[in-house]
Amino acid sequence: MCKEEAPSLSANEIANFLGGQAENADGVHVSSVMNAEDATESHAAFFTSDKLAELESCSAGLVLVEREADVQGRACVRVENPSLAAALLQQHFYPRRQAVPGIHETAVIHEEAFVHSGSEVGPWCIVQSGATIGKGSILSSGVTIGEDSEVGENCHLYERVTLYPEVSLGSDCVVHAGTIIGVDGFGFVWSGEAHEPMPQTGTVEIGPGCVIGANCAIDRATFGVTRIGRGCIIDNLVQVGHNCQLGDFVILCGQAGLAGSSILEDGAVMGGQAGAGGHITIGAGAQVGGGAKVFSNIAPGAKVAGNPAIDYMKHMRAAARRRRGE
Amino acid sequence: MCKEEAPSLSANEIANFLGGQAENADGVHVSSVMNAEDATESHAAFFTSDKLAELESCSAGLVLVEREADVQGRACVRVENPSLAAALLQQHFYPRRQAVPGIHETAVIHEEAFVHSGSEVGPWCIVQSGATIGKGSILSSGVTIGEDSEVGENCHLYERVTLYPEVSLGSDCVVHAGTIIGVDGFGFVWSGEAHEPMPQTGTVEIGPGCVIGANCAIDRATFGVTRIGRGCIIDNLVQVGHNCQLGDFVILCGQAGLAGSSILEDGAVMGGQAGAGGHITIGAGAQVGGGAKVFSNIAPGAKVAGNPAIDYMKHMRAAARRRRGE
Amino acid sequence: MCKEEAPSLSANEIANFLGGQAENADGVHVSSVMNAEDATESHAAFFTSDKLAELESCSAGLVLVEREADVQGRACVRVENPSLAAALLQQHFYPRRQAVPGIHETAVIHEEAFVHSGSEVGPWCIVQSGATIGKGSILSSGVTIGEDSEVGENCHLYERVTLYPEVSLGSDCVVHAGTIIGVDGFGFVWSGEAHEPMPQTGTVEIGPGCVIGANCAIDRATFGVTRIGRGCIIDNLVQVGHNCQLGDFVILCGQAGLAGSSILEDGAVMGGQAGAGGHITIGAGAQVGGGAKVFSNIAPGAKVAGNPAIDYMKHMRAAARRRRGE
Repeated sequence: MCKEEAPSLSANEIANFLGGQAENADGVHVSSVMNAEDATESHAAFFTSDKLAELESCSAGLVLVEREADVQGRACVRVENPSLAAALLQQHFYPRRQAVPGIHETAVIHEEAFVHSGSEVGPWCIVQSGATIGKGSILSSGVTIGEDSEVGENCHLYERVTLYPEVSLGSDCVVHAGTIIGVDGFGFVWSGEAHEPMPQTGTVEIGPGCVIGANCAIDRATFGVTRIGRGCIIDNLVQVGHNCQLGDFVILCGQAGLAGSSILEDGAVMGGQAGAGGHITIGAGAQVGGGAKVFSNIAPGAKVAGNPAIDYMKHMRAAARRRRGE
Repeated sequence: MCKEEAPSLSANEIANFLGGQAENADGVHVSSVMNAEDATESHAAFFTSDKLAELESCSAGLVLVEREADVQGRACVRVENPSLAAALLQQHFYPRRQAVPGIHETAVIHEEAFVHSGSEVGPWCIVQSGATIGKGSILSSGVTIGEDSEVGENCHLYERVTLYPEVSLGSDCVVHAGTIIGVDGFGFVWSGEAHEPMPQTGTVEIGPGCVIGANCAIDRATFGVTRIGRGCIIDNLVQVGHNCQLGDFVILCGQAGLAGSSILEDGAVMGGQAGAGGHITIGAGAQVGGGAKVFSNIAPGAKVAGNPAIDYMKHMRAAARRRRGE
Repeated sequence: MCKEEAPSLSANEIANFLGGQAENADGVHVSSVMNAEDATESHAAFFTSDKLAELESCSAGLVLVEREADVQGRACVRVENPSLAAALLQQHFYPRRQAVPGIHETAVIHEEAFVHSGSEVGPWCIVQSGATIGKGSILSSGVTIGEDSEVGENCHLYERVTLYPEVSLGSDCVVHAGTIIGVDGFGFVWSGEAHEPMPQTGTVEIGPGCVIGANCAIDRATFGVTRIGRGCIIDNLVQVGHNCQLGDFVILCGQAGLAGSSILEDGAVMGGQAGAGGHITIGAGAQVGGGAKVFSNIAPGAKVAGNPAIDYMKHMRAAARRRRGE
């Protein structure tokens, strides 16, 4: 979401931008992407091949379609991947807000913190001793950056994001409001009289290009590092336990939860409200269904569901038997 | 919860207020409603017919009971619905706090924002450009109202509630502390090299009379509107995905979660930790059991449970077989 | 996690501190505990008997082991419980931060609040009328303590923790960032036209020595008290409903949720994402598995899993049948 719209583009400019071909589109200009149902003349809509039947009822001025799609004479731009093209085009129309360099007068910046002169620090932010804020990054209001924590370049931390001390956040990350990174991991030992806490002396390292939703909680490591790779996408209200190791491009949907020391290899996906027990490995590209509970290792590329999570097709057959009363 | 108690009422005044009949209650006054176990002479307790056996051990000065209840000579007020009567009576004794008009000196109000002179804006609130705050509304401390967002009349937004830009909140709503409304929906397209974000250019519209719990996250629409009808009740830590459409009087219990584009018709209920996949319709008045995971449409009035959610009675029979080891 | 490290200790000092015996350890000093894999000469690592095989590849300067462990001549300290010894030793090396007494100039302290002169109140905190903050307690930035709420001695409330009015928090508690305590319970009665709220006039009482994670929500009671005993451990994103009664040393793992009026007796454990319906009793020491949904009482010491939660072994056998396609 972004307030400063870019000017409209012609179909040819769009084709150029996307590496596609314009067709039937002389003089056509659009100023944003819109869903097919609500699109009007000033909008581009997008259609994967399975949705082409909806083309007729769509009033978009321009449509983004696959190379071989039958467009019935409609003004179009042909591309490899209409969904991706739509995302990239909309990014052009609604670029991420750029930092307006400066530090709000109410922010509290420790004298031993480093805030790049090209970054923006909003009201009632705190940047503690030894912390650094990279060029072009935005801290909205009420953000706290703990001691020795590091925010890379071109990040946007929304309202009241809190980095506990010694957290490292890569460049080009977005963290939505209310999310807490680097909170103590859940480590206690029963003494016979009380749960004695193991001090959580580790840290959190998050790679570049990650997007993290609102009101999440990401634990610091007991020892060592809780690690999140580059380009990971984490939705709202997600819990990442201490010492988890996430590869690149991992996806955690809303309210997913990882207990301590879980390993998610590159491109693994946890559906909404899915959970993984501690010390579990979920292989590269594996998909854990919504609400599934994972208690044993999942092979790369596997698709699992249920509690405990098993092969998705087995889960569906078991569900069918359950429905039939067997 | 509210500090300013109203003065006590006589049984006759209560009967009048509730449209009921006082009985055996001359000279009886009470000053609040209390649960049966802890009630004393100055309290009214309430008893549905199935709880009448507990009447004897209750020390309440007055009891609210159904029209035909046998009260064994106790001072009572007879009403249609004792639970409802108790809620309405307690609302009289503990009215919602009214706005104390004024803007705290530390609040940051944009010059192009509109804050009604009859509203209350607490410390360290932000009201951004184009935003409006209606008459009688209260923003507790640290609340952020984004650009062009709108808060209706007589709302109460507790500590650090954040409305991203362009969110509309109807009149008479209560939003508890830490809740984020209008955060980016979860829309990404894999490019072969990264998850490319689809800018989330839609908004959120919430009807009048809604109550939203603490630390929730409600996503803005990808395109168009995430819509929550009037009188909806949302508990703590709930996730509402982009483009969800909630009718009126929908109930989402604690930690429930809705993926994108879910439709919940009027009066639908999601139990605690229940979840619904994307593009699902849950019919009017349907009830989704606690922890259930919904992956297909649910008929109006249906009652479902389990993962995947099926008819509640089938689920219970399957659970019985599971318990017996079949 | 804590910045001020204590000086290193000799193996004999450690043995003394832990009530253990040093062996092969003349002149050995270490300055912190570390996990076996990453430990170096300046670290102590710890090994329970089942992990002794990993001793050989560990480079720690000192190892904490059980009384009879074969340490192959390594410098060690023998103790009853190496895990507990490691936690206690690490607490020595990384003591909890002590309050730096004083009230930040931006904090808003009501004239009828009591803030002990030995406590620390950070920027943009609010302490409302009738609230009290005990000796040695730390309120990080943006913390709100509602009217008549009470924070005991030596507590640490991290960023933006919010206590609604009339909440009581015992001494030596830690509450992590973003957690809300005392929010309205979820009590509504359908009037035929709307969900009428029952004003939530009860409170929350939390015993001494509790640790509560980030972004949790703990409801106040409808009437009476939501009670959490001493030494309870609550992880991130946990929901505790109104009128719940938790005994001592209860553990709620990440994203666990309790509906209203649940009773958890001493030492009960809820796994991650586990849930309990309302008015359920979970007996002393019972263990509810990750993701399990509890809809009926659980006996003391029982171990349950699944939805609905049943005996753990039965659940595992049912899971095996499901896996085999029966």
